[in-house]
Amino acid sequence: MTSGNPEPAESVAPPVRIAVLGTGLIGTSIALAAARAGIDVTGWDADPDVSARAAATGCLTPMSTLAAAVADAEIVFVCTPIPAVARTVAEALASSPDAVVSDAASIKGRIAADVSEIVATSDLRRFVPGHPMGGSERSGPEHASASVVDGIVWVLTPTPATEPAAVDRVASFARAIGAKPTTLAPERHDRLVAFVSHLPQVASTSLMGLVATEEADEPDILLLAAGGFRDLTRLAASNPDLWADIMLANGEQVAEAIDLYVARLIWLRDRLREDRSEDVALLFREAKQARLRLAAKPQVRAGVAVLQVEIPDEPGALARITAVIGEGGVNIEDLQIVHSPEGGRGTVHLTVAGPAVDDATEVLASHGYDPIRLA
Amino acid sequence: MTSGNPEPAESVAPPVRIAVLGTGLIGTSIALAAARAGIDVTGWDADPDVSARAAATGCLTPMSTLAAAVADAEIVFVCTPIPAVARTVAEALASSPDAVVSDAASIKGRIAADVSEIVATSDLRRFVPGHPMGGSERSGPEHASASVVDGIVWVLTPTPATEPAAVDRVASFARAIGAKPTTLAPERHDRLVAFVSHLPQVASTSLMGLVATEEADEPDILLLAAGGFRDLTRLAASNPDLWADIMLANGEQVAEAIDLYVARLIWLRDRLREDRSEDVALLFREAKQARLRLAAKPQVRAGVAVLQVEIPDEPGALARITAVIGEGGVNIEDLQIVHSPEGGRGTVHLTVAGPAVDDATEVLASHGYDPIRLA
Repeated sequence: MTSGNPEPAESVAPPVRIAVLGTGLIGTSIALAAARAGIDVTGWDADPDVSARAAATGCLTPMSTLAAAVADAEIVFVCTPIPAVARTVAEALASSPDAVVSDAASIKGRIAADVSEIVATSDLRRFVPGHPMGGSERSGPEHASASVVDGIVWVLTPTPATEPAAVDRVASFARAIGAKPTTLAPERHDRLVAFVSHLPQVASTSLMGLVATEEADEPDILLLAAGGFRDLTRLAASNPDLWADIMLANGEQVAEAIDLYVARLIWLRDRLREDRSEDVALLFREAKQARLRLAAKPQVRAGVAVLQVEIPDEPGALARITAVIGEGGVNIEDLQIVHSPEGGRGTVHLTVAGPAVDDATEVLASHGYDPIRLA
Repeated sequence: MTSGNPEPAESVAPPVRIAVLGTGLIGTSIALAAARAGIDVTGWDADPDVSARAAATGCLTPMSTLAAAVADAEIVFVCTPIPAVARTVAEALASSPDAVVSDAASIKGRIAADVSEIVATSDLRRFVPGHPMGGSERSGPEHASASVVDGIVWVLTPTPATEPAAVDRVASFARAIGAKPTTLAPERHDRLVAFVSHLPQVASTSLMGLVATEEADEPDILLLAAGGFRDLTRLAASNPDLWADIMLANGEQVAEAIDLYVARLIWLRDRLREDRSEDVALLFREAKQARLRLAAKPQVRAGVAVLQVEIPDEPGALARITAVIGEGGVNIEDLQIVHSPEGGRGTVHLTVAGPAVDDATEVLASHGYDPIRLA
């Protein structure tokens, strides 16, 4: 990252014990990854039932109070919903005078500001705002997994008050569980996610809302909706309350991203009305080039690799290739049929854990496939 | 459809011979489906090489001139790129005094208008503008397949000049090859596809273009881009010249759809700036409900069925389920891992041909899976 912040030091030893406050999907996933790395975890959740369900995974010792959970922890991770983060961070800092406290909220500027309002400056040096960039469409401790944080980019957004040594300690934990810590100023983080995370959500939700409104007058409109429409509106089915919280907490950045997006849409609208064919074609050509560059980039989840393989279009073809991968002892993290299997051959993208890519490539090649590594 | 047009009569016999002008992916796919149904096909393409490659599929007799191709055809399908459609339709009508002529362009108002300008009214009664709603990301006769048109909605958009008997003849062909003919006024077709096909393309292209521009200042922005961003920008990689032609030919309808989309984006932007949390949450909730209704609807490609199946998250799990399906002799048309396989179980959506869904369900159930039919 080119944040201007120094990258965290790599020489700091990882913690022996951490606490997780808020044991939903992300908190319990962090706990599972910590337990796997031999780190003790205590846990607390405002909802004792959630806490008990997290404890059932065997990765943490549940505590009945926040104070008890943080008592002996070197690092405390606050993984509550956004509206509860600042006050939980403040409580953790107050309850544990030596611990470093971090959080996992997907916006950072507002969190840092809210915390600084309610916490003494002397304690702020121990607060390291963070955003582990992993997740799942599902929620709750039952769906937690260490793989949620495997190989992810873990953004740390220290404020001017944050002590560098505190950043190093959180980074040492992230590295110990297999994530990639990186630093970014809080405002910069929020600006970037406004474009690549929050704006896509806005674009998808608005498209779905618009077509739903049109449907009232044109009940058959969705008969004409094909795969492209489904791709664009998939995000609209995400957890609405979670997303409303995120959008509102990053309101100004998202509003600015919407402004730039709207300006582009209006530019294209005017070129269409003026029948400016060269401008329109150029816009589509440039966007295609950009998307192809994106496809060629490694996936964000740095822990995975993607192989492209051609398969024949016939019953059993997918079975054979997945059987071959299974034989190699490799778990398929994701599988996508890239071209619909029309015209005799299909192309699949297989996502596997990074360290498994050589095994997967070898076993595929030995069975006559010709895998191409994309990322 | 509630177009006000009468649905085409079902009693008309399918043609014995058709001609396809423009033997790219869609033209050759129509020819393959026709040949499968026992219908003779002659073909012509402005590019003799494309014509020869189409002939190599064995489904059509290539002709060296347009006039020769249409000579004995009862129905002529014009499947050229949009800029060539009107004049090719005019030539076909002039060359074959009895044939019905249809086309496959994805916009209809402009085509109908252009044709009516260059064709005598007496010939216009034999022109049936059409839009078979199938396709593939690929192009060229090599990638053609009868499955491109299997079970699709084939929209026919007769003009006031079109004779109902001509519509019935094209509809009889569509039914004969396994598609579902339906009628819609040209303007109405164009308005609906502007929302569900052209606007998604605009939204995706504009988002990709915006982030590519931001990337110039923020080279790390794509490190923070996850699956949602990839979903939203996948369409941006489509054929840019094809899409520019479509957008320009449907310019005013697309411009109006953009206006409505922009109005929604601005509404949300203002609510974010005003911190109107209830309005924002309601918007996200309503869009989620609409998207869930869409997911519950049958897919557009009416010939397919989708089964949802839970599988364990372990090496070989995907291999086992695909092997079971293969054993049942069923071809998997598409497979999507819906939830990333985090947390012990994964959910896959299997798309199979409609008639194969009972076989697929039965063989899955007999192996202990619990498939749920979604569509």
